[in-house]
Amino acid sequence: MQTFQAQFLNVVRERNPLIHNITNLVSANFTANGLLAIGASPMMAESPDEMAELAAISSAVVLNLGTPSDEKVAAMLVAGVAANRANVPVVLDPVAVGASQLRRNTVAKLVRHFVYRDSGNAGELAYLAGVDWQAKGVDAGKGSGNLADIAKTVAQKFSCVAVLSGEQDFVSDGKQVARLSNGVALFPKVTASGCLLSAVVGAFVAVAPRELAFQAACEACMVYAVAGELAAQGLADSQAGTFAVRLLDSLAAINEEQVAQFANVDLDFLT
Amino acid sequence: MQTFQAQFLNVVRERNPLIHNITNLVSANFTANGLLAIGASPMMAESPDEMAELAAISSAVVLNLGTPSDEKVAAMLVAGVAANRANVPVVLDPVAVGASQLRRNTVAKLVRHFVYRDSGNAGELAYLAGVDWQAKGVDAGKGSGNLADIAKTVAQKFSCVAVLSGEQDFVSDGKQVARLSNGVALFPKVTASGCLLSAVVGAFVAVAPRELAFQAACEACMVYAVAGELAAQGLADSQAGTFAVRLLDSLAAINEEQVAQFANVDLDFLT
Amino acid sequence: MQTFQAQFLNVVRERNPLIHNITNLVSANFTANGLLAIGASPMMAESPDEMAELAAISSAVVLNLGTPSDEKVAAMLVAGVAANRANVPVVLDPVAVGASQLRRNTVAKLVRHFVYRDSGNAGELAYLAGVDWQAKGVDAGKGSGNLADIAKTVAQKFSCVAVLSGEQDFVSDGKQVARLSNGVALFPKVTASGCLLSAVVGAFVAVAPRELAFQAACEACMVYAVAGELAAQGLADSQAGTFAVRLLDSLAAINEEQVAQFANVDLDFLT
Repeated sequence: MQTFQAQFLNVVRERNPLIHNITNLVSANFTANGLLAIGASPMMAESPDEMAELAAISSAVVLNLGTPSDEKVAAMLVAGVAANRANVPVVLDPVAVGASQLRRNTVAKLVRHFVYRDSGNAGELAYLAGVDWQAKGVDAGKGSGNLADIAKTVAQKFSCVAVLSGEQDFVSDGKQVARLSNGVALFPKVTASGCLLSAVVGAFVAVAPRELAFQAACEACMVYAVAGELAAQGLADSQAGTFAVRLLDSLAAINEEQVAQFANVDLDFLT
Repeated sequence: MQTFQAQFLNVVRERNPLIHNITNLVSANFTANGLLAIGASPMMAESPDEMAELAAISSAVVLNLGTPSDEKVAAMLVAGVAANRANVPVVLDPVAVGASQLRRNTVAKLVRHFVYRDSGNAGELAYLAGVDWQAKGVDAGKGSGNLADIAKTVAQKFSCVAVLSGEQDFVSDGKQVARLSNGVALFPKVTASGCLLSAVVGAFVAVAPRELAFQAACEACMVYAVAGELAAQGLADSQAGTFAVRLLDSLAAINEEQVAQFANVDLDFLT
Repeated sequence: MQTFQAQFLNVVRERNPLIHNITNLVSANFTANGLLAIGASPMMAESPDEMAELAAISSAVVLNLGTPSDEKVAAMLVAGVAANRANVPVVLDPVAVGASQLRRNTVAKLVRHFVYRDSGNAGELAYLAGVDWQAKGVDAGKGSGNLADIAKTVAQKFSCVAVLSGEQDFVSDGKQVARLSNGVALFPKVTASGCLLSAVVGAFVAVAPRELAFQAACEACMVYAVAGELAAQGLADSQAGTFAVRLLDSLAAINEEQVAQFANVDLDFLT
């Protein structure tokens, strides 16, 4: 465990980056409120006809596979290509990628066409890494792969920063792997809490130089997990409704000192 | 009034059934969080292209007519047929079925193609039963039909278990009718609280043997209504915002003893 | 500053007007809950195939440009024309109208085809007024135009009542301009709080005679802003999650006396 000095949290709040999300009907409201809380400016749209324009004025583009449709997939392709052209970072959250042929095909198309950063749970990243895993719908499921290795493999395979979130988060750029051990049991009881994390990763990489994307992704995960710990104080494990509300409050209140105080991180866990 | 012994609540929590919902943009987030709270694993998707696969891996499929579109109706048909083939129970929530030709036609198509269980308010089930009723948009509206008879007629007409929710709930399998008298005035002030009930019915029938579907549907209604009563304790009738949050907490915390203690149920109200 | 006597708040609660919303995946749930809280009956649908029927049975139609698609734009046109024919008031919320060609074209089409009332932030109404302004995605952005003049220009140009919401709200019918100075800093930290205001404007104009639409729109803004002030009491500026929940409670609890006591309004600010 090391001390962790946040370097992007206040930058997000100062710059208020516009984060464009192509997302799903479950997570849209919660993601938008979470981005507002952390200090970013959320935008959600889904028509292919306006994707190029919106991606170009955004500071990051977050593509969420939660409820794919022909129109959304088309929109994601246009947005991803436009973001790449404008040097706008792209985050891909391959929700339940293994669950259907449509999702597998969509992700295959998306990763062929543009550079991206990846953010998903163990089951989703195991699929991308080609590791055997039993996912369950949108839940992580269970498998025997080494999570740090999975994150590293995905990062290498797709030349991206990979974020594998779960009880512990693993972040890798293909060389380093950081292990983040914060977080609370209430997170997986709040729908779209993983989607929101991907969007928060988007907000942090939006304000970071490209060569610090790994650090920015790690910080996003730390801030999110510590905010969750603070939000959960005094709550029973059954109080996911209250937790979701307090998480939004906590994301807006969290400061660098709290991150440094509570962060439980091993930045060179696997190097 | 009889004592009521919950038999499926803990099974839902142990088995964590995957409930696939084709639902609407109003209810998606609340329904997913409510399913997580009761112990199920929610999935929401809507592309016809992945419906057969997702229905087949689900423990129940919940079709919600809230915001129909060509694509959603197509997805519902595919999902329903696939679920039938895989012996996965289907719950149909015919939201505002009387309000437009599109909804009337959609329900007519859906009920022709697959077996299902039905869950809606008085106005919606009155329409299905062929009883005169003045519904108002998505609200139940007013009519003079006997609610127990309406539930029984729908169950008989469509060979399903019918759940008519409202101030009192009526559940019927075409022979028996149970009357459940729990619940609070705050429920209709929370949008999608009826949609969530239908999804919770899905979670309970998902873990019950087919011949106990009536009992499972009754229990789902009891658990939901008693959780609502517990959530509403100390709240004013104006506090629907707070109630919605607490309802999620309450669904996760409720146990068999509380259901037995507070259940106000007449299981053979009309036999 | 003048005393303000609410005249429509209790009418909304008595008549419980059906408000049909064509809206987006971010705001749908919050808008529906907010409409329930104020005493209206929300309906959200989006298929063009049922728009004419639904608009005709509604007391107001609210068109929200948040996430436009071909289908939604087609639905809005059908709904708007049907509403006009049935003398049902239409509220248009031109979310992020300046951000893409699709949005600019959509609004141009919509305003050609039907009469409406307008509700948006400074950036959106500046675009409609033809005033130079730097909007930022869905946020208001910054510009040098006079807000009262912008509201008045939009009202004149489109023969509507224009509502420009922000730190101060400006409402105009093209002759009068009212300035409303209530509200709290937490509002823009809650996503869709502007969308909900537009829907609340819909609920108030739904129960007002056409010649009192300006007064009804002013009252909607006052009620909403004062409810927000009451909801924010005791909250830190970071507690937007809690604020959103309390705002729903507050909209249901607010009464005429509180509006009169706290309203900070200049009804003939610019006449």
